[in-house]
Amino acid sequence: MTTEEQLSNTALNAWKLVTGRLDAALAPLSDEQLQKQVAPGKNRLLYLVGHLTAVHDRMFSLLGLGERLHPELDEIYITNPDRALPDPTSAADLKRAWSEVNSKLTAAFETLTPQQWLEKHTAVSDEDFAKDPTRNRLAVLMSRTNHAAFHTGQAVLTK
Amino acid sequence: MTTEEQLSNTALNAWKLVTGRLDAALAPLSDEQLQKQVAPGKNRLLYLVGHLTAVHDRMFSLLGLGERLHPELDEIYITNPDRALPDPTSAADLKRAWSEVNSKLTAAFETLTPQQWLEKHTAVSDEDFAKDPTRNRLAVLMSRTNHAAFHTGQAVLTK
Repeated sequence: MTTEEQLSNTALNAWKLVTGRLDAALAPLSDEQLQKQVAPGKNRLLYLVGHLTAVHDRMFSLLGLGERLHPELDEIYITNPDRALPDPTSAADLKRAWSEVNSKLTAAFETLTPQQWLEKHTAVSDEDFAKDPTRNRLAVLMSRTNHAAFHTGQAVLTK
Repeated sequence: MTTEEQLSNTALNAWKLVTGRLDAALAPLSDEQLQKQVAPGKNRLLYLVGHLTAVHDRMFSLLGLGERLHPELDEIYITNPDRALPDPTSAADLKRAWSEVNSKLTAAFETLTPQQWLEKHTAVSDEDFAKDPTRNRLAVLMSRTNHAAFHTGQAVLTK
């Protein structure tokens, strides 16, 4: 494996580790447990599942990896705060969407070469990317990995 | 900049972003505010400052970057849970240690080449590293970045 491949694989491993841990924490929770708030008055676990699913799902288009799977989640779990709108699906369906998005994303990530990781993401213009080449796919992957870790820190408080 | 350098720089940027955001959130807090718990019965913000300072400080030796600065923090902020032992210093001193550790670490990180990022860390044997070359410095950096993001997610709940 080349130095470049080792570097991008290390980043991909971090993504798998963080999403895998969160998945393991969420999978056994009952519908009732998913209604718990991470702290008084804060987001429910179920909202975090929806939020992370929607944010990850947006990576398909942001990274040019194909059509996203669940655009209907954005309004409820990104645009609006928790409890502003009713949950559109059962907790089981939402957990299924979470697993589906992550496994399809990870499979797409596995196909990228180190050079492709350094290509610009679709939310930055050619001109801006020329000025700041750190606005690449890999930066998005790391940012989303940190975002997932951020909410994992909250989710574990309900234990 | 080579592909390799761009890849390792992207990881270093993620570290700077996460620690910088946490720093900006903690810096303005009063001693009294740092006594707040992130959720009822959970860690105080001050404990998180001590915990993250100690965990980051251990990276000097773990990554072979020189002597660590504050080994005295481990017993209080890593080995023991919050409130088991009295805080050994003022909140101001602890915040100073946090800033000092992060700025010295980041300066040391800036000197590493992509190849050096892929070298083994000091807690893995030559034999184990030969079997699993992902146990490198870069993996530690990303793991600590995610760990800092994890606790940032908790710290923001006190707002």
